[in-house]
Amino acid sequence: MVRKVVDAVMGREPFDTVIRNVQIVQVCSGEIIPGDIGIASGKVAFVGNLEEDCQAGEVIEGNGRYAVPGFLDSHMHLESSMMTPAHFAEAVLPKGTTAVAADPHEIGNVMGAEGVSLLCEMTRDLPLHVYMMAPSTIPSAPGFENSGADIRAEEVRRMLRFPGVIGLGEVMDFNGVADGDPRMMEIVQAALESGLLLDGHVPAFKGRRLQAFAASGIDCDHTYMDPEIAAEKLRYGMCVQIQERFLTSELMAYLERCPVQNRIMLVTDDVPLSRLASEGHLDSVVRKAIRLGLSPMKAIRYVTLNAADRLRLPRRGAIAPGRYADILLLDSLEEIRVSAVFSDGILVAKDGRMVRPLVSKPFPRSAYRTMKLAPLSEEDFKVRAKGSRVLVNVIEQDGKTSRTELRQVWFPLRDGCLAMPEGIAKMAVFNRYGRTDGRQIGFLSNMGGFRGALATTYAHDCHNLIVYGSNEADMCKAANLLIECGGGVAAVRDGEVLSRIPLPIAGLLCEDPMPLLAEKFEGFVKAAKEMGLNHGEVLTFITLMALAVSPKVKLTDAGLVDAVNKKFLPLIVRTIE
Amino acid sequence: MVRKVVDAVMGREPFDTVIRNVQIVQVCSGEIIPGDIGIASGKVAFVGNLEEDCQAGEVIEGNGRYAVPGFLDSHMHLESSMMTPAHFAEAVLPKGTTAVAADPHEIGNVMGAEGVSLLCEMTRDLPLHVYMMAPSTIPSAPGFENSGADIRAEEVRRMLRFPGVIGLGEVMDFNGVADGDPRMMEIVQAALESGLLLDGHVPAFKGRRLQAFAASGIDCDHTYMDPEIAAEKLRYGMCVQIQERFLTSELMAYLERCPVQNRIMLVTDDVPLSRLASEGHLDSVVRKAIRLGLSPMKAIRYVTLNAADRLRLPRRGAIAPGRYADILLLDSLEEIRVSAVFSDGILVAKDGRMVRPLVSKPFPRSAYRTMKLAPLSEEDFKVRAKGSRVLVNVIEQDGKTSRTELRQVWFPLRDGCLAMPEGIAKMAVFNRYGRTDGRQIGFLSNMGGFRGALATTYAHDCHNLIVYGSNEADMCKAANLLIECGGGVAAVRDGEVLSRIPLPIAGLLCEDPMPLLAEKFEGFVKAAKEMGLNHGEVLTFITLMALAVSPKVKLTDAGLVDAVNKKFLPLIVRTIE
Repeated sequence: MVRKVVDAVMGREPFDTVIRNVQIVQVCSGEIIPGDIGIASGKVAFVGNLEEDCQAGEVIEGNGRYAVPGFLDSHMHLESSMMTPAHFAEAVLPKGTTAVAADPHEIGNVMGAEGVSLLCEMTRDLPLHVYMMAPSTIPSAPGFENSGADIRAEEVRRMLRFPGVIGLGEVMDFNGVADGDPRMMEIVQAALESGLLLDGHVPAFKGRRLQAFAASGIDCDHTYMDPEIAAEKLRYGMCVQIQERFLTSELMAYLERCPVQNRIMLVTDDVPLSRLASEGHLDSVVRKAIRLGLSPMKAIRYVTLNAADRLRLPRRGAIAPGRYADILLLDSLEEIRVSAVFSDGILVAKDGRMVRPLVSKPFPRSAYRTMKLAPLSEEDFKVRAKGSRVLVNVIEQDGKTSRTELRQVWFPLRDGCLAMPEGIAKMAVFNRYGRTDGRQIGFLSNMGGFRGALATTYAHDCHNLIVYGSNEADMCKAANLLIECGGGVAAVRDGEVLSRIPLPIAGLLCEDPMPLLAEKFEGFVKAAKEMGLNHGEVLTFITLMALAVSPKVKLTDAGLVDAVNKKFLPLIVRTIE
Repeated sequence: MVRKVVDAVMGREPFDTVIRNVQIVQVCSGEIIPGDIGIASGKVAFVGNLEEDCQAGEVIEGNGRYAVPGFLDSHMHLESSMMTPAHFAEAVLPKGTTAVAADPHEIGNVMGAEGVSLLCEMTRDLPLHVYMMAPSTIPSAPGFENSGADIRAEEVRRMLRFPGVIGLGEVMDFNGVADGDPRMMEIVQAALESGLLLDGHVPAFKGRRLQAFAASGIDCDHTYMDPEIAAEKLRYGMCVQIQERFLTSELMAYLERCPVQNRIMLVTDDVPLSRLASEGHLDSVVRKAIRLGLSPMKAIRYVTLNAADRLRLPRRGAIAPGRYADILLLDSLEEIRVSAVFSDGILVAKDGRMVRPLVSKPFPRSAYRTMKLAPLSEEDFKVRAKGSRVLVNVIEQDGKTSRTELRQVWFPLRDGCLAMPEGIAKMAVFNRYGRTDGRQIGFLSNMGGFRGALATTYAHDCHNLIVYGSNEADMCKAANLLIECGGGVAAVRDGEVLSRIPLPIAGLLCEDPMPLLAEKFEGFVKAAKEMGLNHGEVLTFITLMALAVSPKVKLTDAGLVDAVNKKFLPLIVRTIE
């Protein structure tokens, strides 16, 4: 209640908590102010010097540490962590992330609006404040893939009214927007009419096509950023949200001198579990930005006040009277080492650990039943053809990123089936939602030395069952392991299960807390390397080869897709009798 | 529709309008960019260089003029103009004000929530975009005056749901907030729960009491501002809204170097009709700020992007794709001479004149019936007392401002009534709403030479009937003139009506357009000067002597009030038999 806050300032009531002797990083004015912070009813009541004998339920000694606002991640996806929201909160709160704007488009692809509603429910009442964005682009490439849902304007309108939803999640079909595709136009129109936020995803566009995208009302982007691109987007009134991988010293130098500062943010987008465990969350992005030359005051402002302004959260984002007391204590401003975390005025984490564990709410049974596929046989992994030799469209992966190229390779036939030449591996995609029986086999080059099979149901954005392998027996076994356990990842070589991690909730998440799950994934990545996978980022590789909105050639449950020109490619180009 | 905007950018549809060859002031990036502006469906679709042969319904030649976003006044009161909203719009649109956030607390004091609802209705569909704030402090000094309404939390909650209302209007009872007064706390709580804006009015407070005010969640102020006060308010996360009369070169120098720029605005608050006609509206504030050393880019940003951000209007405040095309063409950036005004993409004013007049909607009959007073007699203006001499608490006015002091003066008695010594005039206040029969007589010093009577029903904030005079006969006549015509202002000397301006709508507004009404008021002010009123600002004087929230001593319908210490003063202090 407001009265309690005012009364505490005026000394008519005790503060709930006083944090003594801190250097307050005041992002509202760009100053660092030594003093104390008085907290009442979860809010900052007073900032400055309090009397020695002022009344407080609890006094916390700051010992001269820096007090900064809790970090607010203005664009991210909870599901990348593969953990339940409660476990995710336990993982990121100690690192200083106290609020996130989450676009649940992964679970949305699996379970549709029901999945979104479920995450809204699961994130309510956590000490991590989760604001939800209604996913806009499900599936990500309509007509080129099939996921567990097909979200149109009517469904978007419904989701925008869910409690906790503050806007439309990243519109990824940027071509659809610029081309005036009716499906996207209706979805954008629904969001405009709601008056809520509209998030974008618009790599590659500049000039007129970028203006067409912005003219639709979608006013932010978190894809590839450099000074020139940032300048153009800011000029069109867009917010630029910068991910860790696009941070450079050139970009930091540009941001440092940018005359209009309030539309710049740092975000995480997707932080895979392994990086979360080893490097951190938004704190890691802030740290890197500072290391690359951005002043700590600006870097902190980008993940606090600016993010709160973007998300229209006027009561968060700063340590100022009347704002919720999301506060971090840091030993050093440059190192961003978080030693205490307050959420709504409550100390929730200390020295990198939660003060007490969070209770995970149970997911309903429907969330455990998203693997609607009958067991597969080796036959399902074979490609039959006529003739003696065939020219095949093959996906060439680069061993580092998710970017692929098209390559054409001659295959011999054996027993009426395509036989893989040296250096080629197989990729199979099975729609797992029972809405279609879509299934496709394709091939990957640059796979020399890979032996065995890797399977995953965590596969952007459709999250169909994907299997990569050197032989049908291992592929079939890996796939069936996942069908059995409701989804996850598996590694099989010569019939032996090297690793299996069930992700039974929507085939995306599991109930393990971070340390345990990170260890399991370490084992999985180790197995993949032992199997001879030459890709530096195992999870990037297995989860992105079916994503038909990232360049250039991908395999979906509907076929081989030229993702740039949005057209299907034949698997077999020529046949020699 | 969004599709039409996107299609226009991409050349699939013609633009509705193209403005050619302008210097675009891009407040989003702090740049000035030469180019063209393409408009479709009321929105900016494209900003930059368009082909010579691009399709457009209409092409307007900019001739190298500056294109700046329409000015947005983030704190003002429509009623100060004494015009209907349509006539107000006609007055300010040609000067470049295309949107306002209006706190209708004048009509709210007269007609309560019904008056607020009425202004919402009257301002809908105007080319001037009017966003309404629900008045919070009616009457302005509860317990010390009575107006036409008594607005509590329940009523505020109801008004916050009116279509067009975006927040709580300026909370003027700053002491009530800091002191935790239950009435104010409940009103603030209601606004916090609505999630809408909370506007403040907090002069004089600093340090702890200012923090108590800010801790309540009220996060802006438009009262007296200097560098020190602005710095403190920004530090507490508040927005500072600067009126013309507080602009100084010191303040401009401070703002120019302020590290966090986005919480600074320029506003008009109250612009009396006379100044509106002679000097302008928000354009005049911008002009003065620039003359005092603020860079044009910052000054313009303060009345466009910053104001739009404050009011949470992400589709206004900049000339950028997807934002409503509120655009001004200026011949010079320093002079701020507006030569063309577009509202939602439509040219509404040119060379200082409306392209076509606006239609005023008729106010309902209830708005014309707010003068609930029976005709008065001379007796009503006399103060009876016993004894031979009495010591009287007199209001000393300073001839320049609305600030008054307390003075004590010995009065002789004549026929059992107080007789005014030289230099003293009478002031009478009559509650005009029929809710109480409150009426008070008081005295003003420093009125030497004043002869006749001035009456007004426009009298902040209660808008009771106020009469100032040197004799009962003229006072009675002036009062009855206003009772007869439903309110307004009148000047009477020796029984002769020197000026009378009916303001029959709520006793505040009339149907005259600005030129006519300005001429009438010129006549009224001239009459007051001829009557020997020594106050430099006639309207300030007559409308503010009953305002019990401004220092120091005022007369309301409930009595003589010490406005600083919030207590009643006796009229007669001592009596000599």
